[in-house]
Amino acid sequence: MLPTTATDRRAETSVPLVDVLAERWSPRAFDPDGVVSDEQLTAALEAARWTPSLANGQPSRFVVGRRGDDTFAAILDSLAPGNAEWAHSATVLVANVAEVTDENGAPRTRHEYDLGQAVAHFTVQAHADGLHVHQMAGFSAEALRESFGIPARFEPLTVSALGVLGEADTLPERVRARESAPRSRKPLGDLVHRGTWN
Amino acid sequence: MLPTTATDRRAETSVPLVDVLAERWSPRAFDPDGVVSDEQLTAALEAARWTPSLANGQPSRFVVGRRGDDTFAAILDSLAPGNAEWAHSATVLVANVAEVTDENGAPRTRHEYDLGQAVAHFTVQAHADGLHVHQMAGFSAEALRESFGIPARFEPLTVSALGVLGEADTLPERVRARESAPRSRKPLGDLVHRGTWN
Repeated sequence: MLPTTATDRRAETSVPLVDVLAERWSPRAFDPDGVVSDEQLTAALEAARWTPSLANGQPSRFVVGRRGDDTFAAILDSLAPGNAEWAHSATVLVANVAEVTDENGAPRTRHEYDLGQAVAHFTVQAHADGLHVHQMAGFSAEALRESFGIPARFEPLTVSALGVLGEADTLPERVRARESAPRSRKPLGDLVHRGTWN
Repeated sequence: MLPTTATDRRAETSVPLVDVLAERWSPRAFDPDGVVSDEQLTAALEAARWTPSLANGQPSRFVVGRRGDDTFAAILDSLAPGNAEWAHSATVLVANVAEVTDENGAPRTRHEYDLGQAVAHFTVQAHADGLHVHQMAGFSAEALRESFGIPARFEPLTVSALGVLGEADTLPERVRARESAPRSRKPLGDLVHRGTWN
């Protein structure tokens, strides 16, 4: 049987994590009838809004579409085929956009970093509400620019699928195996340095 | 009285957020005697380890110093004076580093974004454990490179102070007012777009 519940895919850690982080993972199988309430969507966006950022510059923007509306359709159209083939079942698609230069043309720094933080907080709030998020980098930023009229000083960096976890056996065969493959990360010792780098 | 507890500074949101996000904020006042257990520190790093990343590329690295050790002293020395004047009271300082090119010299993408996500998850875990985190971009990456021998293909992007919330009246006068200033964010409507950008 393929694991399709969050608890089946809990992160393997040397010490316990808070549940919302331990149980978070990025599914491809979303329930095509899954419901995300307006309050749940707003909460995830509020979480992103209150994320810290460099000098409180708040460079993160979100183009939000619900399944069935034109915004969702345009974001779905922008996705690489390998993402579109499963992301159509998400309830919400969000294009995550960073402000690269400010209103006066001055280049920002850490806008990519800060957008990553904002999407992380969005994700934590959504998972705390029993939803799931899968972020994608495979999409056409140019297509999003054209569809929505995104100004040049903003840059779409990722797209998030948000929805209700679905059944793995509804996925195209090519990605079905990945849905149940063991989750893996580098050992903690490869990521953490003390004293010197080596 | 200056607010020095997380609940005093809860985020103002249109719908409720999960407590760990609503109560998270970035203090400057840390308790110079504050204790962060090895388990708490490991949990925050495990949270960062299990963060999603582009194609599971895991570009995030962490140089970790505890107050009193040489790593802490070197990270503290790298900070801009306006950060060092309060960050010395943190229990842990972490230099957050992104892998910019892979072992074969191929440039990565979204490594800044992914590091932002990893530090966000680190922060969420720490706050869930009753600790506080304050991220800084004001530091010398060159000083960190020299102190730790960080290879050219890695780039320090931020430093995190981790510790126990302290009393605002222990802060230098210049930053004390900021500790109790109202928290603010742009209205949600300025960040979220539907249909078209304007």
